[in-house]
Amino acid sequence: MTLTGKLLIGAQQVAGDKGSLFAINPATGQPLEPAYSLGGAAHVERACELAEQAFDTYRQTVPAIRAQFLEKIAHNIESLGDELIVRAMAETGLPKARLEGERARTCHQLRLFAATIQAGEQNRPRIDPRLAERKPLPRADIRQRRIALGPVAVFGASNFPLAFSVAGGDTASALAAGCPVIVKGHSAHPGTSELVGRAIQSAVAECQLPEGVFSLVFGAGSEVGAALVSHPVIQAVGFTGSRTGGMALLRIAQARPQPIPFYGELSALNPVVLLPGVLSEKGDDLGRQFVASLTLGAGQFCTNPGLLLALDQPSLENFVTSAVTALRESSAQTMLSPAIHNAYQHSTVCIAHNKHVETLAQGIGSDDPNTCRAVLYATNATAFLADPNLHEEMFGAASLLVRCRDEQELLRVLHHLEGQLTATLHFTDADLPLARKLLPVLERKAGRILANGWPTGVEVCHAMVHGGPWPATTDVRATSVGTAALERFLRPVCYQDLPDELLPPELREDNPLKLKRLVDGQSA
Amino acid sequence: MTLTGKLLIGAQQVAGDKGSLFAINPATGQPLEPAYSLGGAAHVERACELAEQAFDTYRQTVPAIRAQFLEKIAHNIESLGDELIVRAMAETGLPKARLEGERARTCHQLRLFAATIQAGEQNRPRIDPRLAERKPLPRADIRQRRIALGPVAVFGASNFPLAFSVAGGDTASALAAGCPVIVKGHSAHPGTSELVGRAIQSAVAECQLPEGVFSLVFGAGSEVGAALVSHPVIQAVGFTGSRTGGMALLRIAQARPQPIPFYGELSALNPVVLLPGVLSEKGDDLGRQFVASLTLGAGQFCTNPGLLLALDQPSLENFVTSAVTALRESSAQTMLSPAIHNAYQHSTVCIAHNKHVETLAQGIGSDDPNTCRAVLYATNATAFLADPNLHEEMFGAASLLVRCRDEQELLRVLHHLEGQLTATLHFTDADLPLARKLLPVLERKAGRILANGWPTGVEVCHAMVHGGPWPATTDVRATSVGTAALERFLRPVCYQDLPDELLPPELREDNPLKLKRLVDGQSA
Repeated sequence: MTLTGKLLIGAQQVAGDKGSLFAINPATGQPLEPAYSLGGAAHVERACELAEQAFDTYRQTVPAIRAQFLEKIAHNIESLGDELIVRAMAETGLPKARLEGERARTCHQLRLFAATIQAGEQNRPRIDPRLAERKPLPRADIRQRRIALGPVAVFGASNFPLAFSVAGGDTASALAAGCPVIVKGHSAHPGTSELVGRAIQSAVAECQLPEGVFSLVFGAGSEVGAALVSHPVIQAVGFTGSRTGGMALLRIAQARPQPIPFYGELSALNPVVLLPGVLSEKGDDLGRQFVASLTLGAGQFCTNPGLLLALDQPSLENFVTSAVTALRESSAQTMLSPAIHNAYQHSTVCIAHNKHVETLAQGIGSDDPNTCRAVLYATNATAFLADPNLHEEMFGAASLLVRCRDEQELLRVLHHLEGQLTATLHFTDADLPLARKLLPVLERKAGRILANGWPTGVEVCHAMVHGGPWPATTDVRATSVGTAALERFLRPVCYQDLPDELLPPELREDNPLKLKRLVDGQSA
Repeated sequence: MTLTGKLLIGAQQVAGDKGSLFAINPATGQPLEPAYSLGGAAHVERACELAEQAFDTYRQTVPAIRAQFLEKIAHNIESLGDELIVRAMAETGLPKARLEGERARTCHQLRLFAATIQAGEQNRPRIDPRLAERKPLPRADIRQRRIALGPVAVFGASNFPLAFSVAGGDTASALAAGCPVIVKGHSAHPGTSELVGRAIQSAVAECQLPEGVFSLVFGAGSEVGAALVSHPVIQAVGFTGSRTGGMALLRIAQARPQPIPFYGELSALNPVVLLPGVLSEKGDDLGRQFVASLTLGAGQFCTNPGLLLALDQPSLENFVTSAVTALRESSAQTMLSPAIHNAYQHSTVCIAHNKHVETLAQGIGSDDPNTCRAVLYATNATAFLADPNLHEEMFGAASLLVRCRDEQELLRVLHHLEGQLTATLHFTDADLPLARKLLPVLERKAGRILANGWPTGVEVCHAMVHGGPWPATTDVRATSVGTAALERFLRPVCYQDLPDELLPPELREDNPLKLKRLVDGQSA
């Protein structure tokens, strides 16, 4: 498939008129053909107009139609074959196996949402039947279902060019819910975005859906993003990216007359707490496991373990020795983009110069462009509590060990943390009393709590929560991974005394979709 | 019980230091003893400190304990007997029967939330068991539940001194979810607020809960409200009131570094669409029913039918004649407060002077203070579409009939409307084709759609949606009435590979709470 370098507006390929950009191969620093033309507010306007036109038809499709569409997208992505993988490798520096795995995850995700909407769990119909004889007043017949919010803007993330990008979790869940989607493709991987975008565009046509169900725009600076988020047609936003970028878009969303849900997944340190008992038992193993998790994908995961907390006891030293050894053997890895590499350099230089921070070990360096050299720092709790700079995410394979004097200080550090995507406890039976004390604190700090594992690797399933208190996300009620992500794009509507023939199928008396429904408060 | 005129901060009665106010009896215009002392930011600070201290204990109570607490509140409110009703009558001008009904509704609401949390439906635990043999990677054990958001600020509404005030729907749902509540009492009914507040305060003590579970503050101007909404301890806000007041608080919430859910129920016209067939069949009846709904409680309901839409055909005239006759016979009624009466006077004077608006009929006038004289206006669709002033809520027994030339114009008017709490269709079999065309538009405009009924009267049940697109509310995903209101104050947390002994009861392998759970995506 020849890359066109164009925007996808509904069924059209459209050249932008706001200049152009090239993707950069981070492994070589060289630009990649073709040039990608950039759009502006007028392109957003057209995409929104088409999305609005498509919305009523699309939201009222039965789940089986939307499921077929999601499956078709997965099929079309797979049909791109190696071309997609090769382009994504060139644009992101990520290795083949990782991208193949990510493609599998992306297609699994689309198919899981397809299955989920057909099972109907996200809809949760509620029926309170008429009580004609109730005194003093009869009760009307009242039935509730959830309907799609409206067109959704999705911002592709740099670090998952497939799973959190054009056909990633935000797009899949919004489309599953019945919302048209307009994606702003990430400028670091426009070719990958175009390939996946065209796979979706084809699926729209093949499923005979209105063209406005999907558009893909590119833009420089903030014009396109701001135009999207402030457009009256847009009814929700999904974003995965930096805290600065996400908060800027959130503020634009908040300046709208009409408030809309803004689902931003911003940043996290993902604290890992190592309790004394488990450190005594297997500090060595934990050190190696930690470095494997830290350096996976050059540390470019939202759930990268960027903070280690432990009591400053002799049992900690086995862990440190083992982690230091493993880290020193870790190879340099190409980062996703020059911008991310620069940010990593900046944050590691800053922390290395902090007089309360010791550099415990560094990985192997490299003269290749844009490489990440892994690094582990250490400090004490007093310094950590006093310095907000030490609470900032360092995106990449860098982590900070905070030594705490005692349990009280450990608790104080945990209380002091900002919101997190994950919090991990390593413990053994001897640590259970302390683990019990920490759990309630961790629950308030994070969306996912792990026991004796590592936070990298986010399962796409029904129970997953990839979310958490701010600044991990901008909306603590939501998850951006797993089937509960669907609920972000639905709203409840109730129907009072409607005759069966006017009711939507999920609420009809004979329950043609065979859904589980809450009847008079009881599951039926 | 002697009214103290004090704030309730945790277990204490505290005198404010920011001046004082008296409730005004709107029927006489005279002040009511005692003076209510007003608090400031320092009182909010203390209430928030106590709420934060109480939160972890309170949120971790088992549902049975919180249910007992809610039932105790209902019992204590009932035990206030006539004293509560007499004070509320004096402060609001509402009649005895209405307030007795509202008390019954308030206590029913508390008991319904008690029953609901014990059934556990709001929790929706999800379990994806470990798949140790899965290839290429095993799946961890992942379990999700919902936990309380944190302390909640509730703003009492003027128009439901019991059901949407100190122990109203927002408070009941937040307490049920496990969130401490700080109420800002409405200055129009401080005595009613104190009585109910002390009923809750006693219930906190009787149930041996931490005192910070509940506080009640009063304040003048915006200091107390702004301090509450911007306080870092507060994790969500529930508000029912004017669009101006609600939007001002929303903007304060948005200016926080940490975004929080803001559930504001602001304003609505609650359009009622009268289709031609039903007008031919029973225009007379509908005219009388309409006036009964319009004038109920002096029209001071969020769901008051403030807008009538119909095709300008001869069949409409029966309805108009009947409504005009009934309206002319309707008595003047005391409004809730001088401020509300002034606003009603202002909005009706403005619309009556609009040259495109005809006054069809007025109710009986009165020289008594603060009375509402019901009124029905008419205009045509062209004028309505052109003038945003005609889309503004007139809080009180005023309504506007918009005559539409044809179906296209009717659809245009509906498309043009802002978000609504309710939308009502009156139709007969002959109107079904048109009703089918209108329904999808109404779904996008309102949270509740009624057939052949009247929007006043909001059932407290499982399927109710009292919500809708902005400006009906500030968060279209939520309802403020019915058991789904609970979900506003919960957030999901997931647990990966936690041993059974560390899991919360709703997620334990043996399911001790006997909840319905979603296991591997299947209800079990």
